[in-house]
Amino acid sequence: MSPPRLSTPEEYRKLVDSVDTFLLDCDGVIYHGPVVVPGVKKVLEMLRKENKRLIFVTNNASKSRRQYKATFDKLGIPVSENEIFGSAYASAVFLRKVLNFAEDKKVYVIGQDGLEQELESVGIKHVGGTDPEDRVFMDPFDFASIQPDPSVGAVLCGFDGWLNYKKLCKAYTYLNSDPNCHFLLTNQDKTFPTNGTTFPGSGSMSYPLVFALSGRREPTIIGKPNKHMMDAIIAEHQFDPKRALMVGDNLLTDIEFGINSGIRTLLVMGGVSLPEQVFGDNPSHVVPTYVMESLGDLAVLAE
Amino acid sequence: MSPPRLSTPEEYRKLVDSVDTFLLDCDGVIYHGPVVVPGVKKVLEMLRKENKRLIFVTNNASKSRRQYKATFDKLGIPVSENEIFGSAYASAVFLRKVLNFAEDKKVYVIGQDGLEQELESVGIKHVGGTDPEDRVFMDPFDFASIQPDPSVGAVLCGFDGWLNYKKLCKAYTYLNSDPNCHFLLTNQDKTFPTNGTTFPGSGSMSYPLVFALSGRREPTIIGKPNKHMMDAIIAEHQFDPKRALMVGDNLLTDIEFGINSGIRTLLVMGGVSLPEQVFGDNPSHVVPTYVMESLGDLAVLAE
Repeated sequence: MSPPRLSTPEEYRKLVDSVDTFLLDCDGVIYHGPVVVPGVKKVLEMLRKENKRLIFVTNNASKSRRQYKATFDKLGIPVSENEIFGSAYASAVFLRKVLNFAEDKKVYVIGQDGLEQELESVGIKHVGGTDPEDRVFMDPFDFASIQPDPSVGAVLCGFDGWLNYKKLCKAYTYLNSDPNCHFLLTNQDKTFPTNGTTFPGSGSMSYPLVFALSGRREPTIIGKPNKHMMDAIIAEHQFDPKRALMVGDNLLTDIEFGINSGIRTLLVMGGVSLPEQVFGDNPSHVVPTYVMESLGDLAVLAE
Repeated sequence: MSPPRLSTPEEYRKLVDSVDTFLLDCDGVIYHGPVVVPGVKKVLEMLRKENKRLIFVTNNASKSRRQYKATFDKLGIPVSENEIFGSAYASAVFLRKVLNFAEDKKVYVIGQDGLEQELESVGIKHVGGTDPEDRVFMDPFDFASIQPDPSVGAVLCGFDGWLNYKKLCKAYTYLNSDPNCHFLLTNQDKTFPTNGTTFPGSGSMSYPLVFALSGRREPTIIGKPNKHMMDAIIAEHQFDPKRALMVGDNLLTDIEFGINSGIRTLLVMGGVSLPEQVFGDNPSHVVPTYVMESLGDLAVLAE
């Protein structure tokens, strides 16, 4: 059965009244790259006046919450750092609060400074990542130099523009030699959209490890659509799931995330997923609770 | 049913008499790293005297046949370049003879000089690979610079110790923007053994592309166990498959390769696959035609 397509002020009001906590995807809902979605600034302002809690949920793993806030600042959207929940921070919270990662252990990072900052924000030590010694090509091949550091207790992979074979060999060696070493991916995004096209995403960057270890080790994937992301959010922000709503533009990440987490979902158009994937003859198996053209349309309630 | 385990001179003689063409895996059959398997030199000499054809078949994609011959020379094993069939050369032959790759097109290479040399050996032009412009980290992220060259008609991925995000973005863009651009992997090896351990193999290196494009593009995989490798061998060397034998130490690459290609197979021990995978309570679904301790054991026939 097709979900209801909300389009009147009465339908919008009924929805808003039924929600205390809005979990909002960012790119495709709040903005498209450098452009804020029309009406959205007014909507966020209105929701704040009505004392709704806003949590911005993004799979972006290259940025810390501080770096993400800077993006919002540049767009003129007021948010506080603790309203932002990226897969980098979610991974750090998951390690600390869900896995109770040992204080004396370190994380080997395939990722950038944003991911390191989030680990530091919860008091987790890390190696790899932006270390210049690991931002090199392994030339000549010096496999004997790949010696695991016994204090490493987890490998965490996110978006890393400096991905290289030395990092892959190091991460592989931790996971191959120590069955107790945790194996986490910030997310499983195949691609990310930019400049009107797509490029390999952070999920793709972790696939050399996933494939090399397949049949022996399975990664724990934190970001949307996995419930681990919600477990991390709930470890920080308590809320009533019955009065929460996940808003997103992507059926396979945002909407599936809401479904996996047992909360209602609102799909907005104009982003990744298309109307025919919901209303067409051969619809997606992922069905949102509600559909709207744009989050900005709620602005009629503020007039 | 378990395969026969050959162990007597009579059994060895019967096998050798039934074979005209020996397809031989290298590492694990002929040598283990820097050490020649005992007896193997004598066996190869004997087989040559009996006018058997020898074809050395390896998934190694970083070396050209010339570079591979140098490995054999160093071990004191006489071979000629055209007896060696690596997945790099097989990929070049497959492009030229099986796909009839257009003369005016180029291949975008994720790989090293051995792969480039093999493309050149069959007259195929290439870009990427060892080009210093592509052996860099994309810092800062300059996605606008990733502009496809319209003369590229295939992406070929092999082992590349200089794998980086710029190469992945370029290769992805060719495959994402042009449905006619061929997508080839030299092989799907998860790992490769060295220094008594394993590291991510060339199949793993191609997985960022395989995953990013999954559901939209499927790669053609050349190396063992795929029959494409045999198609390339047969395009070069004609032989009667009924009188051929594939000899290897790995059930999932060598033996499956023989089975997929419709030729008999001989598994030797002491390499990747273990006796219990053939004779244990829970054996592999891949069953060789024959099993022997070592190819070197045939040396009794020369005494």
